[in-house]
Amino acid sequence: MSADLPVSPLAPKAFPDLPVIGGVRFATAQAGVKYKNRDDVMLAILDAGTTIAGVFTTSKTRSAAVLDCEDKIGGGSDDPAAILVNSGNANAFTGKSGFESVKRLTGTVAEATGAPQNRVFTSSTGVIGEALPDDRITAQLDALVSDMSNAALPKAARAIMTTDTFPKGSSQVVKTANGPVTIAGIAKGSGMIAPDMATMLVYIFTDAMVEQSALQSMLGSLTDKTFNAITVDSDTSTSDTLLLAATGASKVDVTHDPAFRDALHTVMLDLAHQVVRDGEGATKFVAVTVTGASSDEDAKLHAKAIANSPLIKTAIAGEDPNWGRVVMAIGKSGGDADRDRLSIWFGDILVAENGWVASSYSEEQGATYMKQQDLKIRVDLGLGGCETTMWTCDLTHGYISINADYRS
Amino acid sequence: MSADLPVSPLAPKAFPDLPVIGGVRFATAQAGVKYKNRDDVMLAILDAGTTIAGVFTTSKTRSAAVLDCEDKIGGGSDDPAAILVNSGNANAFTGKSGFESVKRLTGTVAEATGAPQNRVFTSSTGVIGEALPDDRITAQLDALVSDMSNAALPKAARAIMTTDTFPKGSSQVVKTANGPVTIAGIAKGSGMIAPDMATMLVYIFTDAMVEQSALQSMLGSLTDKTFNAITVDSDTSTSDTLLLAATGASKVDVTHDPAFRDALHTVMLDLAHQVVRDGEGATKFVAVTVTGASSDEDAKLHAKAIANSPLIKTAIAGEDPNWGRVVMAIGKSGGDADRDRLSIWFGDILVAENGWVASSYSEEQGATYMKQQDLKIRVDLGLGGCETTMWTCDLTHGYISINADYRS
Repeated sequence: MSADLPVSPLAPKAFPDLPVIGGVRFATAQAGVKYKNRDDVMLAILDAGTTIAGVFTTSKTRSAAVLDCEDKIGGGSDDPAAILVNSGNANAFTGKSGFESVKRLTGTVAEATGAPQNRVFTSSTGVIGEALPDDRITAQLDALVSDMSNAALPKAARAIMTTDTFPKGSSQVVKTANGPVTIAGIAKGSGMIAPDMATMLVYIFTDAMVEQSALQSMLGSLTDKTFNAITVDSDTSTSDTLLLAATGASKVDVTHDPAFRDALHTVMLDLAHQVVRDGEGATKFVAVTVTGASSDEDAKLHAKAIANSPLIKTAIAGEDPNWGRVVMAIGKSGGDADRDRLSIWFGDILVAENGWVASSYSEEQGATYMKQQDLKIRVDLGLGGCETTMWTCDLTHGYISINADYRS
Repeated sequence: MSADLPVSPLAPKAFPDLPVIGGVRFATAQAGVKYKNRDDVMLAILDAGTTIAGVFTTSKTRSAAVLDCEDKIGGGSDDPAAILVNSGNANAFTGKSGFESVKRLTGTVAEATGAPQNRVFTSSTGVIGEALPDDRITAQLDALVSDMSNAALPKAARAIMTTDTFPKGSSQVVKTANGPVTIAGIAKGSGMIAPDMATMLVYIFTDAMVEQSALQSMLGSLTDKTFNAITVDSDTSTSDTLLLAATGASKVDVTHDPAFRDALHTVMLDLAHQVVRDGEGATKFVAVTVTGASSDEDAKLHAKAIANSPLIKTAIAGEDPNWGRVVMAIGKSGGDADRDRLSIWFGDILVAENGWVASSYSEEQGATYMKQQDLKIRVDLGLGGCETTMWTCDLTHGYISINADYRS
């Protein structure tokens, strides 16, 4: 439980001031799904006209709520919409009972909010394999609906936490060609919730006007460079959900506006980085950049192999400038590589080139660099023009302690 | 260094009695490549007529010695052959210097033993990125050659150790259709040697007569079910080497003998299991079996996802019967899966079926089972007839301690 864990040393100094987004209101409540004495449910109600895009886990064992959301993305936007999220129970791998819970929840939210059931989205995060006590959540709906506020997004960021050690929020105010719009988002993850896998939930809201298919396509391509470019431990949740809702309250159409896209990218990247900064046991934040790859796919294979390597992640935890393990990861990734064309940098320090340690490199330089909290590892493959960056954290005793504890 | 590490709790009670193999002699010496006061070089000399098969790391950054061995496999067998192995320095990612070291070593061994240079195989394991002081090894060659003995295989098993906590050996005496033959092998790994990745080296000798191409094909297919079916931390060494030498001293041709193949499989599986049992920090030995897969490739994808999942491996370390994490791994593996057809067993205990926890399962049963040192996780996908088994160990604080320590 988060109450037991110290705040990550990589956490931002404070939760940001989030601007109010026209067209959406929030409320939170204590349903007591699992946690006591804290909010564990959040409800968002979105005005009619809101377009909603979504990206979900690729897991083949994804949860009932994820399957239900996937079905609903891409429908019409004439009616109001709602998003209901609970922490404490993932409602994943719960057989038919899982689908029945989702039906009951979305039906009750529809009644209480006036949003049609096919515009009600739910997410659940927490214990896997236990039936969701959805009656505890629906019992709070009237109270939630009567408590809606356009300023409650920070409370929502707290209500969706599981073993997160800090709430995650980010925002941007953008001057687009057609006028100013605002974006604000919250996220949870990848704190582990006993006994389950890390789950990442992200909800982003904007008062911009964007047609649904354009919103979906923008979200998809930006996800590749943000939430799909981070890794804590290479494990994938059954419940990962990212929803982006554009209320249009600003009346500013941003469908093809590059400034909006950039601002959305900024918010998504900031939230993705915060998720890594709250990785279980993390003490270092690491950017892994691969350049000079023959293809985008190869660049990703190499970056992923480095970012997921237990040997590299333990070396970073030990502040060991162990470039040999980077060579190892490049070798095993499955992507194209030529040992004798590789160059490796830690920050700005050239560590290896021409198939061997760089003549200018000294172990002391590397060791000093590794003491920093934010690290950059860069590899140039010397083969082509493709590149990518991924973000990860180190692998520490903290990770083992958090995840090897018996559920109770 | 191995001297600092306690012997793995999963180690066999004693090193086995290894039979003498006709046609091959061994010697070991203290070259002082890195370790002091222990043997760190082994030499094997094989009689003329010996056929040699080999399997090597698939790493794209493989070491000079590996590249040299690969080139030499498949040549004629009329002449004597030799295998030279050192511990303490991997001679990997050492640029041109690495190839020059290998040339000097194989040339000097050829002179000292009478084996032609294209029949001299070398392996190096240890520190990466440092030039191999091969002169310290060649300085010992005359002493090695004058000390050769057909009974020194157990000493060789110790000389090739790095951070292994116990030497690894296995043997079989087989009654084949054409008469009795003997197989004996040694291995090292996957103890980590600061500052490098785990490296697995395996040398197996038999007095059987087998034509080289048949030997190679047998070795390749048995490797898939043994050394390629184990994982400690998903990282792949630049130096993994498996050599199988058939001296033919028994005059018994076993080229198509199923009993020989079975016995070789037994020796390889035993050595592979010993490598897992010496995994860094391991306290549990785990067999992961996937049945009911649509294809062999899918069975492997799922088994690998389970065996490499940090969340499953930490749960096992914590003796937590966390079947939800098995569902997660199946979901993320990339192989075909249908959540509602999955069944999961811990040992003989049915844990989950029909998309939910099994009605007969109790958490107490699972928790009691997980206290055992040797564990079995089985998943039936309910999709087809393909299956596979992989072996792994748990992920503990010991792994972090061993691998996060700064090199010194």
